[in-house]
Amino acid sequence: MNFPERVKIVEVGPRDGLQNEPASVSTNDKVKLIELLAASGLTVIEAGSFVSPKWVPQMADSNEVFSRVPRLSGVTYTALTPNMTGLENALHVHVDEVAVFAAASETFSRKNINCSIAESIERFKPVCERALQEKIRVRGYVSCVLGCPYEGTVDPDRVAQVAAALTDIGCFEVSLGDTIGVGTPHRARKMIDVVSSAIPIGQLAVHFHDTYGQALANIYAVLEQGVSTIDSSIAGLGGCPYAQGAAGNVATEDVLYLLDGLGISTGISMESLLSASRFISTIIGRPPSSKVAQAMHNRGQNS
Amino acid sequence: MNFPERVKIVEVGPRDGLQNEPASVSTNDKVKLIELLAASGLTVIEAGSFVSPKWVPQMADSNEVFSRVPRLSGVTYTALTPNMTGLENALHVHVDEVAVFAAASETFSRKNINCSIAESIERFKPVCERALQEKIRVRGYVSCVLGCPYEGTVDPDRVAQVAAALTDIGCFEVSLGDTIGVGTPHRARKMIDVVSSAIPIGQLAVHFHDTYGQALANIYAVLEQGVSTIDSSIAGLGGCPYAQGAAGNVATEDVLYLLDGLGISTGISMESLLSASRFISTIIGRPPSSKVAQAMHNRGQNS
Repeated sequence: MNFPERVKIVEVGPRDGLQNEPASVSTNDKVKLIELLAASGLTVIEAGSFVSPKWVPQMADSNEVFSRVPRLSGVTYTALTPNMTGLENALHVHVDEVAVFAAASETFSRKNINCSIAESIERFKPVCERALQEKIRVRGYVSCVLGCPYEGTVDPDRVAQVAAALTDIGCFEVSLGDTIGVGTPHRARKMIDVVSSAIPIGQLAVHFHDTYGQALANIYAVLEQGVSTIDSSIAGLGGCPYAQGAAGNVATEDVLYLLDGLGISTGISMESLLSASRFISTIIGRPPSSKVAQAMHNRGQNS
Repeated sequence: MNFPERVKIVEVGPRDGLQNEPASVSTNDKVKLIELLAASGLTVIEAGSFVSPKWVPQMADSNEVFSRVPRLSGVTYTALTPNMTGLENALHVHVDEVAVFAAASETFSRKNINCSIAESIERFKPVCERALQEKIRVRGYVSCVLGCPYEGTVDPDRVAQVAAALTDIGCFEVSLGDTIGVGTPHRARKMIDVVSSAIPIGQLAVHFHDTYGQALANIYAVLEQGVSTIDSSIAGLGGCPYAQGAAGNVATEDVLYLLDGLGISTGISMESLLSASRFISTIIGRPPSSKVAQAMHNRGQNS
């Protein structure tokens, strides 16, 4: 077993999370959420997306969020920049790191970003070049790594190809997303085995959805392989866009509880994280989908 | 890794689950639930408890449940029998297997069953003797194996002692319960390591609560060790009695999804299991806490 001593959690709640929540959140509240998350010890926070507000109205204020959020030293504030316009806007407000988003399923790519996988990589090339010129690192996302809502099972070799294409154009890290949450540990490990034969495991991140309750089991299984970067979302923000009302992003609180229990260091304070969770849950008007947050909250009320 | 080829799921919903639900369920509906569970392929169903209705009013009709439920061949219908009166009543209605219930924490034992751990074992001795005379197998439960709501951390050696005491008086299997759901994989594995040095791993079952969302990660971790009997509760019935509104028993649907994904056979049909889950969730008037049930339900509604 190759358990890492330290894990980097990439907090995706303010972007991937809020983008998929029905409630609309004000710029003020987004800024406050990001501040609370940074104060908890998280070192990477995906804070916005520079895309057309026509497609993603929830992120129309990313410009303002980045302009207003106070930057904490040691924290990387990142944003999605799927094209050159997005990148230039992001550079203008001093994002620390950007990300591009590909799929391991051809149909998902066409339905989600309106182009083939190959075309998406071509489109990201100049984005990566320009970002790297500005000494801004680029993260690559691959979605549907363990299943596609349209194509079903996805071949791990396909995932490895797309991940390799992203590193080839300059991505320093590739986040592998089980977008519909169908994966279980053996398949997750097999996928990591195949992808890590193409890309060093230290450059891989996992992004599990808890739609079928499997996220923490999958995370545990890939931690055994040495994966040391995990995406998660405060309060489980995000839901699952493919099953109304079902769970989506695994909750950061639950991941932290697992890692704390395994003695893996993260630098994050559970107490501060729970403050952030309570804050955003009140704003969006629903309890956190995090079981840790629920248990701690109820324990507090009963004592 | 010693993954078992086959896992026996012990369904505890009709007893451990319903006993801890605020909604009261009619005898008719209990019988119907047990029939649906048996039809799904489950081979062991904890169907009632023969205790004073003064202490557990939800189980006052166990006598009637056992008298009325049609028995499916190959299915073991079990009941809790903490004392001789309970056992005689259980024998009278032909239970297939009985269980006794001890704790690994002295304080929990006193608060929960009003006697010391040693006294509880003494009390179970004649119950075991009499049951075995009648060729009825006895299962032993140990609660608080990874933490106690009163004493905090629990020593694995203590768990091993109590488990050994239960096998010494004749229990064929010992179910190790993380009653407050605080465990994480390394601690669960350590506990299994210690206990399985005293009792063959084939005689051990695990009973995880999902209070902090860790149940499936723990189950995956102990499957790697070769544990092959898992307790779970349909629809996650049961909640957590120590944190109002928080999760308790891990949901059978979610455990089955994990095992199916790992290629471990159980003989259980997910579709039939979901019918049982929908049935009891409608009766008690709340959605299943199973994420699989939620995702499947929502997927059905959207399609």
